[in-house]
Amino acid sequence: MPEQKAGGDVQPGLLTEYLSADLGFFVRSTREFERFQSPFQVVEVHDTGPFGTLFRLDGHFMTSEKDEFFYHENLVHTAAITHPAPERALIIGGGDGGSAEELLKYPTIKSVTLVEIDLAVIDIARKYFGRVHRGAFSDPRLTVKLEDGLAFVRRSTETYDLIVLDLTDPGGPSEALYTTDFYRACAARLNPTGAMTLHIASPVAHPDRIRAGLANLRAAFAVVAPYLVTVPLYGGLWMMACASSTLNPAYLTPFDVNRRIAQRTIRDLQYYNGDMHRASFALPNFVRELLAAT
Amino acid sequence: MPEQKAGGDVQPGLLTEYLSADLGFFVRSTREFERFQSPFQVVEVHDTGPFGTLFRLDGHFMTSEKDEFFYHENLVHTAAITHPAPERALIIGGGDGGSAEELLKYPTIKSVTLVEIDLAVIDIARKYFGRVHRGAFSDPRLTVKLEDGLAFVRRSTETYDLIVLDLTDPGGPSEALYTTDFYRACAARLNPTGAMTLHIASPVAHPDRIRAGLANLRAAFAVVAPYLVTVPLYGGLWMMACASSTLNPAYLTPFDVNRRIAQRTIRDLQYYNGDMHRASFALPNFVRELLAAT
Repeated sequence: MPEQKAGGDVQPGLLTEYLSADLGFFVRSTREFERFQSPFQVVEVHDTGPFGTLFRLDGHFMTSEKDEFFYHENLVHTAAITHPAPERALIIGGGDGGSAEELLKYPTIKSVTLVEIDLAVIDIARKYFGRVHRGAFSDPRLTVKLEDGLAFVRRSTETYDLIVLDLTDPGGPSEALYTTDFYRACAARLNPTGAMTLHIASPVAHPDRIRAGLANLRAAFAVVAPYLVTVPLYGGLWMMACASSTLNPAYLTPFDVNRRIAQRTIRDLQYYNGDMHRASFALPNFVRELLAAT
Repeated sequence: MPEQKAGGDVQPGLLTEYLSADLGFFVRSTREFERFQSPFQVVEVHDTGPFGTLFRLDGHFMTSEKDEFFYHENLVHTAAITHPAPERALIIGGGDGGSAEELLKYPTIKSVTLVEIDLAVIDIARKYFGRVHRGAFSDPRLTVKLEDGLAFVRRSTETYDLIVLDLTDPGGPSEALYTTDFYRACAARLNPTGAMTLHIASPVAHPDRIRAGLANLRAAFAVVAPYLVTVPLYGGLWMMACASSTLNPAYLTPFDVNRRIAQRTIRDLQYYNGDMHRASFALPNFVRELLAAT
């Protein structure tokens, strides 16, 4: 979900994502299923070979059938496995249902509240992305609120074990959800052992977004654990973070993680396992230097 | 170094690399310094913002000033740190000098033999890529042989502690260097505690190349340890492997690796460290399944 849109698609039939003004990637669309303007953003659905059915918002790649596990598994399980017994979860954004589906795998989860501003996203997910949400919208534990995430978090008096920020990049409707103010409002909605996860940016293409994002998080949370994952649909190496007042997922061993995956009967993981959990907290030297500078 | 060239650059001024027929990435060239046909391949040098000065062969991205450390550090140090005291190294390909420079950081290294088929590559490296080779061509421990790698390995009677296959992708001049025959010839040139490293392919875009490459390696070596790194210039997640009759780098702890980096005074590492060494052997579930099928 790169921040900079630098010139539209490079060729007819090639869907283009720019990581910066001079760098990007593309995938061939073999069929355009949808393209319309919702009240909030331009919605597109395409068929592609490499990613299967693919979803774009305002020209940015959001999710796809074949690629979604890279993003959703890493956004959800790193914190959810670390939490001793998560019961109540809040998703801001995430209208495709992919994060909800990962959370609903936990037998301890009693409720997932999904706050999505754009009904069109949910409609599209239900129509085209069954392989992403896998029936999450029919799970009685899921409640959908069609509302602005900032307004919801500010007025809410509920508390949660897990908060997942499953947002579009800054620049569109989610701009206000990348601020210290919003992070503090989220921190106030977390139980003492709760944790929030979010995606930040590419440490290769967006060092400034990494610095700013982590500084804003650290102003609101005592524990901020950045981690690195691969998301091909976003262009490769991507930084996420887990923020909490107490919980630090970096301390779990691969053995701990694998035992919890088994005990909690978490199935259908295509990326996440105990080794990858630990590996995600290893940072190359250039990323360490970037973080030391924040 | 994707295998499939599927239609040239998508726009004038955009240098394009295809990972498959329907998927690729691009970087803007702000100036073309060189473009000519050597006896073996089309050679290009461009100025780019994201990657600095960039080198292409037959239209494929090879290396660049700003990105080279992702590839060269991971190709060299994973095996070189694992070896107890490497003295003699052989590089097949690698005419840009980047792998030689990493090997020459080891105080125990007495000789590095670089076998490059194309003099034009070395000329271009000396002229444009001082930030890649960093003076390696002036080091008295380096010997350059302008020769076909397969012929060299077959006729050689020398043995080495480390062999680095720093090759273009199959399809060009290096086609014969991806076969079990060649791997067996390399194995015969390794000392008993020696190891060979090479890059293979993207596990996301080239599952068939991963399967075939590992099967060919396993036919020639008792120990084959695949590992995953990020190489932005090749499109993201990339598999490499270390092959040996005895040496397995997966058993080194981060503490071991960091201690050896310090003891051997290896400097100027922008990616590689003890945590990343161990992390590179962690494999996502979809990669485990891919490897189990080989």
